[in-house]
Amino acid sequence: MIEVGIVGGSGYGAVELIRLLVHHPEVKIKYVFSHSKADEPISKTFPHLNHLTHHYEELNYETISCDVVFFATPSNVSKHIAPKLVKQGIKVIDLSGDFRLKDRDVYQQFYGEEAAPQEQLDDAAYSIAEWSNIKQTVPNLIANPGCFPTATLLALHPVIDRRVVDTNSIIIDAKTGVSGAGRSLSQNVHYSEMNENFSAYGIGKHKHKPEIEQYLSQVAEKDINVIFTPHLVPMTRGILSTIYVKLTEAFSAEQLHTVYEKYYKDKPFVRVRDLGEYPKTKEVYGSNYCDIGLYVDETQQTAVIVSVIDNLVKGASGQAIQNLNLMFGLPETTGLKQTPVYP
Amino acid sequence: MIEVGIVGGSGYGAVELIRLLVHHPEVKIKYVFSHSKADEPISKTFPHLNHLTHHYEELNYETISCDVVFFATPSNVSKHIAPKLVKQGIKVIDLSGDFRLKDRDVYQQFYGEEAAPQEQLDDAAYSIAEWSNIKQTVPNLIANPGCFPTATLLALHPVIDRRVVDTNSIIIDAKTGVSGAGRSLSQNVHYSEMNENFSAYGIGKHKHKPEIEQYLSQVAEKDINVIFTPHLVPMTRGILSTIYVKLTEAFSAEQLHTVYEKYYKDKPFVRVRDLGEYPKTKEVYGSNYCDIGLYVDETQQTAVIVSVIDNLVKGASGQAIQNLNLMFGLPETTGLKQTPVYP
Amino acid sequence: MIEVGIVGGSGYGAVELIRLLVHHPEVKIKYVFSHSKADEPISKTFPHLNHLTHHYEELNYETISCDVVFFATPSNVSKHIAPKLVKQGIKVIDLSGDFRLKDRDVYQQFYGEEAAPQEQLDDAAYSIAEWSNIKQTVPNLIANPGCFPTATLLALHPVIDRRVVDTNSIIIDAKTGVSGAGRSLSQNVHYSEMNENFSAYGIGKHKHKPEIEQYLSQVAEKDINVIFTPHLVPMTRGILSTIYVKLTEAFSAEQLHTVYEKYYKDKPFVRVRDLGEYPKTKEVYGSNYCDIGLYVDETQQTAVIVSVIDNLVKGASGQAIQNLNLMFGLPETTGLKQTPVYP
Amino acid sequence: MIEVGIVGGSGYGAVELIRLLVHHPEVKIKYVFSHSKADEPISKTFPHLNHLTHHYEELNYETISCDVVFFATPSNVSKHIAPKLVKQGIKVIDLSGDFRLKDRDVYQQFYGEEAAPQEQLDDAAYSIAEWSNIKQTVPNLIANPGCFPTATLLALHPVIDRRVVDTNSIIIDAKTGVSGAGRSLSQNVHYSEMNENFSAYGIGKHKHKPEIEQYLSQVAEKDINVIFTPHLVPMTRGILSTIYVKLTEAFSAEQLHTVYEKYYKDKPFVRVRDLGEYPKTKEVYGSNYCDIGLYVDETQQTAVIVSVIDNLVKGASGQAIQNLNLMFGLPETTGLKQTPVYP
Repeated sequence: MIEVGIVGGSGYGAVELIRLLVHHPEVKIKYVFSHSKADEPISKTFPHLNHLTHHYEELNYETISCDVVFFATPSNVSKHIAPKLVKQGIKVIDLSGDFRLKDRDVYQQFYGEEAAPQEQLDDAAYSIAEWSNIKQTVPNLIANPGCFPTATLLALHPVIDRRVVDTNSIIIDAKTGVSGAGRSLSQNVHYSEMNENFSAYGIGKHKHKPEIEQYLSQVAEKDINVIFTPHLVPMTRGILSTIYVKLTEAFSAEQLHTVYEKYYKDKPFVRVRDLGEYPKTKEVYGSNYCDIGLYVDETQQTAVIVSVIDNLVKGASGQAIQNLNLMFGLPETTGLKQTPVYP
Repeated sequence: MIEVGIVGGSGYGAVELIRLLVHHPEVKIKYVFSHSKADEPISKTFPHLNHLTHHYEELNYETISCDVVFFATPSNVSKHIAPKLVKQGIKVIDLSGDFRLKDRDVYQQFYGEEAAPQEQLDDAAYSIAEWSNIKQTVPNLIANPGCFPTATLLALHPVIDRRVVDTNSIIIDAKTGVSGAGRSLSQNVHYSEMNENFSAYGIGKHKHKPEIEQYLSQVAEKDINVIFTPHLVPMTRGILSTIYVKLTEAFSAEQLHTVYEKYYKDKPFVRVRDLGEYPKTKEVYGSNYCDIGLYVDETQQTAVIVSVIDNLVKGASGQAIQNLNLMFGLPETTGLKQTPVYP
Repeated sequence: MIEVGIVGGSGYGAVELIRLLVHHPEVKIKYVFSHSKADEPISKTFPHLNHLTHHYEELNYETISCDVVFFATPSNVSKHIAPKLVKQGIKVIDLSGDFRLKDRDVYQQFYGEEAAPQEQLDDAAYSIAEWSNIKQTVPNLIANPGCFPTATLLALHPVIDRRVVDTNSIIIDAKTGVSGAGRSLSQNVHYSEMNENFSAYGIGKHKHKPEIEQYLSQVAEKDINVIFTPHLVPMTRGILSTIYVKLTEAFSAEQLHTVYEKYYKDKPFVRVRDLGEYPKTKEVYGSNYCDIGLYVDETQQTAVIVSVIDNLVKGASGQAIQNLNLMFGLPETTGLKQTPVYP
Repeated sequence: MIEVGIVGGSGYGAVELIRLLVHHPEVKIKYVFSHSKADEPISKTFPHLNHLTHHYEELNYETISCDVVFFATPSNVSKHIAPKLVKQGIKVIDLSGDFRLKDRDVYQQFYGEEAAPQEQLDDAAYSIAEWSNIKQTVPNLIANPGCFPTATLLALHPVIDRRVVDTNSIIIDAKTGVSGAGRSLSQNVHYSEMNENFSAYGIGKHKHKPEIEQYLSQVAEKDINVIFTPHLVPMTRGILSTIYVKLTEAFSAEQLHTVYEKYYKDKPFVRVRDLGEYPKTKEVYGSNYCDIGLYVDETQQTAVIVSVIDNLVKGASGQAIQNLNLMFGLPETTGLKQTPVYP
């Protein structure tokens, strides 16, 4: 059994890791860490876990012993602790943004804090599981992608990789359920203000913008800037990313569809939908699927790509487990076969 | 493997059976029946099942061959077909109300249709899984309880069985998420009218009233009438039942709590919550749990019992599978260990 | 014009007073007070008020000059300030609970703080507008009723006043939208946890229990205890109160209906609904109406009374303005004729 | 008093007209027409209107006598009746799409039906109230704009009119609350499927695409095609349109903001928000406001324009009344000063 610890135990990322990992046949949850709640049963904070007996523990990186530690923490936590664990031979899968950006200045600009040392950033593997090589070159630390980037990059990878996009034309209009904002309280996600409300936020400033740009630039082997507008939807779970790209050659919808089917034919979690069908967020609720729908406006030679994920699963904890599976040579889908909860 | 068929394949009961059964280690879904959608892939109706390859089939009771058939149909369907399947040696688990009420006149009054023949009603086993003896006396047909009755009867069984309730005082104020109304369209569950709305409905006329009364009367060995008020909550899943009973002897909250803990100590799906804690519907979302909270008003010598279930799982498909497990001698929790999806 | 000031300007009670009062033909909002936001435009906190030019001000009770001050504050604020305003000849309408309970011990028990002096409590007029005599005996300070009590007492007043209820049998199962919890942040009304969730809370401990009991006792001229169970509904606005009472004489539904129609025939804001119709919260959304539906279980000789209000209008700011109208001899409906917003 | 009739009385457009018009000081609702519900009180269909005494009537265009008739009907109704009313000297304000498109072929393509005669189309005035000249040249028939076009065109008018946009670059990512789909039942707006769900639909095929293109082309005096992607948000009311345009000259956010402030300084219903603030749909809930927020990505020389309206008010009935006011020489805001309902 792979023994794991989870840091950030009182947040949604951790609680979703627990939901999935208690049924993972090759994993045992050995530790759930929380500084503020040390020694309390996790069911006190999360009564839905009443049937589990885990207690929160204080993280002492000198005495813990396990195979992997997940960080489901806000930014500016893992960069101080993860390297110490790595030194002790413990693998780290970091769900936070601390090791995602390779450019320390960009990190500073978007996160408002100093980045981890360059060497550590270089060693961290940013892993969109479908397009990652961590199975081959097992890294010590995985920077698990953000939720918006996961939905967006799975949708863009084929056309960027195929070099058929005017890379100066990429517009990402992304919408997320509220759980993406985490469990910390704030006025804008106070129920009475968030319910029956829809809004855009953080245009041009969101931390996921440079993350998307970094990945796309790498695939395209050239610098790419994108327009990225996140929106908040009055629902708990789900991301839908609507992406607009000018195509550099004439493509019919059918041709584009064929490209996507080819790219994703061996990827069990990506379901390319039939032409004319656009995926809905609820169709992946609670699951690790990413569904993709396609449209081409031939007059404007523009593709509209729609992708959906559950932000807490494929956009966070599910992909983290998928990355763990790859890292440990397990079948990619181990412990992740949950059928979406519908309706 | 136990081979099963599902009738009513285009409804929520069926789709929830599919969600759970595709991961059940001892069950194989052999048929999904739908008259109106025969030969179509189920993913056409339910795109969230895109990864499955099942097709709807026409039900021909003369040619099918399997171990169990689930009916996830409206009332007035199973009573015409189930007996024929039973005759061929196929077990039936009926999620509809056709075989729940033993009194044909009461059925007629509340369902507005003629009941099944008395003999068939007598043979059907009404099975609240926690308090059922179907493991011992395996029936041919199980009448799977309704959603409101499940939440309510699990909450009331201990005090009724203990004979500590003034049986003339039982008031059940029940609230359900909208999926309880099924997938058929109607004005009152049209999104724009149901959203941001809360209402009572069908007071005194709901089909689940006589079902609750029949079970309680049987446990109490005397005729019991209840006041039952169902309400509709603007959410998809979940039932919360708030139950008021006058106690015939002075009970402290602690004493009452001890009674419940004793009754449910070996029942894996019922979680009696600590005193002072009242369960929320979301704490059982997507799972087969029933959580129960207790309060005693000592001045009025009245107990307030609060229970929650997911109406589509414990209130329908989950309990149906639990009944299948019992019927086939499997551990009760087989295929039903899903941790609630939270948040 | 009646010049008014509003204390607690950053809360929902105040913002709803503003929404209604800016269109009231006889009122001018002279001050909106907020200590924490003094000098800021109110539109900074509430962008939906962008078309208004009011600024928050610091409350200086020695220098202000107006006719009425509304307190839309948490408890434990008005009791320290309101008496000083009264001394200066300013009328006070208090939307908080500070002056509602006449028994200082009960206040202490339920509010956890020391009550206002007995003399001040005695002078304050608790005013359910439909049944209040403030038009005749104009008080200096009005204790505006709580939201649950308003919905509940309008529903119970006729049968209590008529003396046809077993006063030892009253059960109030009340449900509120989340705005009743105010604008202050807390985990249980964090969007991701409150959405798609339904729960009971504070059974036996809610501040509105003694308020309901005090009013009913006064009408019945005897001590009344009630069972009161509040619930939280995943919606922003609306209260529905389902009330169960044993009747002391046999009443048909028709007879009960006649009683209610008679009691409310001259009350413009109470709409007694036809038999068989139960009101929905959305049918009074944004308006000052209270709708009432009736059912009688003749077997159990029990009436089920269902009432709905918008908790922020009839349950707070709307009734406060209705009380102001009465106090100043204006037609009761002045400024309050808004038709419900539907859907 | 201006006497009006309303056709399509059982839909949301009509019911919203009623909500607003019963408080309009210069209007009297003389008729509410509904074929299917003739002679029934409107409160039977819409209990929230219980305080009103109107009854539905059969529309007989030969005998009715009033000043204006509103059509709040699906497409393919008004084109058959409105011209007859016009002939009798009755003004028509048509909330449906029948007279919006001037090109009969385009109408045929997007509406799937034959268009009204060209002459009638030419006589109809498409009136975005803020930019319309109907006050000067009073038309007989007003084609009231669609909901998406209203939000979008108010947002785009200034930059298109200023000629600073690459007209080949316009992308409109629009999101609507569910009431935009009307009161007719369909599976995708069934509560259980629409709740906690977000989706794109009808890309490239939506009726509002040619409507937007027609208006923009007219303002720009050249043919304009747009990419238009509508989405459905799990909420009842509200539209947010996120619009992306390449600017033909370098513009700072401040400069763009100045342009918008200048265009809208005398338009009481358009509130241009401060830089850095993006409007939320709830900030205009129940009101006739359109709020606009602005962002400029200087690297990409792209403006992101965010606008919000209440789809049933400014996007339908409110703008219809605004058009009536203009048509009859009343102040534009008469009867439309409702402050948004918040929270």
